[in-house]
Amino acid sequence: VTNPSLVSPLGPGREFDRIRAIAARLGDVAPALGDDCAFVPATGETIVLSTDMVVEGVHYRPGWLSHEEIGWRAAMAALSDVGAAGARCVGLLAAVSSPHDAVEADLVALMGGVGDAVRHVGGTVLGGDLTASPQWIVSITVVGAAARPLTRRGMRPGDGLWLTGAVGGSRAALTAWTAGRDPGPSARRAFARPEARIAAGRWLAAHGARAMMDVSDGLGGDVPHLAAASGVAVDVSLEAVPVHPAVPPEACSTNEHPAAFAAAGGEDYELLVALSPEFGEKDAERFRREVGLGLTRIGSARDGAGVRFLLAGEPVVIRGFDHFR
Amino acid sequence: VTNPSLVSPLGPGREFDRIRAIAARLGDVAPALGDDCAFVPATGETIVLSTDMVVEGVHYRPGWLSHEEIGWRAAMAALSDVGAAGARCVGLLAAVSSPHDAVEADLVALMGGVGDAVRHVGGTVLGGDLTASPQWIVSITVVGAAARPLTRRGMRPGDGLWLTGAVGGSRAALTAWTAGRDPGPSARRAFARPEARIAAGRWLAAHGARAMMDVSDGLGGDVPHLAAASGVAVDVSLEAVPVHPAVPPEACSTNEHPAAFAAAGGEDYELLVALSPEFGEKDAERFRREVGLGLTRIGSARDGAGVRFLLAGEPVVIRGFDHFR
Repeated sequence: VTNPSLVSPLGPGREFDRIRAIAARLGDVAPALGDDCAFVPATGETIVLSTDMVVEGVHYRPGWLSHEEIGWRAAMAALSDVGAAGARCVGLLAAVSSPHDAVEADLVALMGGVGDAVRHVGGTVLGGDLTASPQWIVSITVVGAAARPLTRRGMRPGDGLWLTGAVGGSRAALTAWTAGRDPGPSARRAFARPEARIAAGRWLAAHGARAMMDVSDGLGGDVPHLAAASGVAVDVSLEAVPVHPAVPPEACSTNEHPAAFAAAGGEDYELLVALSPEFGEKDAERFRREVGLGLTRIGSARDGAGVRFLLAGEPVVIRGFDHFR
Repeated sequence: VTNPSLVSPLGPGREFDRIRAIAARLGDVAPALGDDCAFVPATGETIVLSTDMVVEGVHYRPGWLSHEEIGWRAAMAALSDVGAAGARCVGLLAAVSSPHDAVEADLVALMGGVGDAVRHVGGTVLGGDLTASPQWIVSITVVGAAARPLTRRGMRPGDGLWLTGAVGGSRAALTAWTAGRDPGPSARRAFARPEARIAAGRWLAAHGARAMMDVSDGLGGDVPHLAAASGVAVDVSLEAVPVHPAVPPEACSTNEHPAAFAAAGGEDYELLVALSPEFGEKDAERFRREVGLGLTRIGSARDGAGVRFLLAGEPVVIRGFDHFR
């Protein structure tokens, strides 16, 4: 469904040929490529923005992902923050740097993955920038909108801490790859094809969520941020943490309890949400039915500061997932 | 003027120590670092967005710029698009990747330059992302707001084509560096310390500008975009083009007419604006007085397509500046 008229007429040049090829792949999910600026008309909502950079060799190794998956994953990782704000997705801007010897088809495939991801959550590619560099670099800025966006601040003593979906799948894939093995299909999919929880975030925002964030640094990294930002202490029961099916065999290989392995793994992009004590299992069941995703109470807040991860009632140390390699 | 309370409380970790150090340098120009998302409250205006990536070794060579200048230049280059839309600056998001062996002070200096630039044009640092890579990478997404933003489309036959400031200074610096010489102070300043024309863009938008864009790819690259997007033919009189004072000596070294040298040079970040035939020298004088910047009529539009650059009445070929190296 290519519509060349969607692209602003451009002068000649190799960069503009590439923009035209990308626009042809993206079709109506990129209605205004080729302009200097993207425009988001006023709707009375607060605009929600977040930016994320993915560097080949740092966030993934060459050979792990197809170019479409590189684009999809970078977009979904950034879009995840829109979900965590309880916002709807307006779209994204993608700055992409490709190696000097990259063929145009790889760039088009990568941007195709970006476009598929943002289409999947109801937004468009608003704009971008193309350049060249020794390795692939994808820098995504996501744009959302919400009447009252949520932040990490707002959890109160007594609130329940809930988690969408299951965690640890991405780390299971990473563990296999770094050990020189190919991850199984479900672990690979968790790493390569994450899904930003936009619909889940909007449901939770509409049903009383008090604070929300995505789990990009792992429960070990992100629960402390939520607790610190909200000014509460949080206890997490590791037994309650839903573990991705790919975790148990990989947790054996690292000699960790599966829930501890999962809680230390990042890049799962599930939502961590504070809900009032009144939000119960019946409400969670309604979420599961309406959103088609798990929602599990994994802990609670109390007066104080700091986070305890409990396994069989005993505190265990869970480190955050370190992106800063 | 550090105010640590401006930063959202963060958990422990090296990345978060760096965010805290950046927040200390930026002070009140970065009121909300440490959150996953930035929020722009609704004002009834259209939101204007643009993204730009700068890669060390591609857009500049190591040793040319201080870290503050890298940040300033990357921010101003991106902010330039907000000016071209005739919008006010809300702020920017900065994703920065630093070499593994970079010291924190260099990262803080770079972000300091970003903060100084956005403060200079009245905005704030809304958010960002930090990662690591073999070389410095700065990806800036700018946010502006305008009741009716301008684009490249809208120039009509008979309109005058005007240019703010003077061009060619950045190319003069590049020419010296690539020849192994140090550029003079004014050429170096044009390259290292460009200024986004935000106030100029707003003045022009308020005084009848019909189409506007910034000159990042040089007149040779950008006038064809403006003409193509507006569906008009454009004649540019090179004799009228205001040439940066650093151009003449460097144009000697490349054996080009100074105006041709300047028109082929990119990254000047001046504004190219279409104004109605009624907009005259008296209006331009008022612009110069009120904005403190030159404004020169360099050409005009007519029915048709394509761009002619004229020198002594004869068409000459002016190539666009190629960022895509």
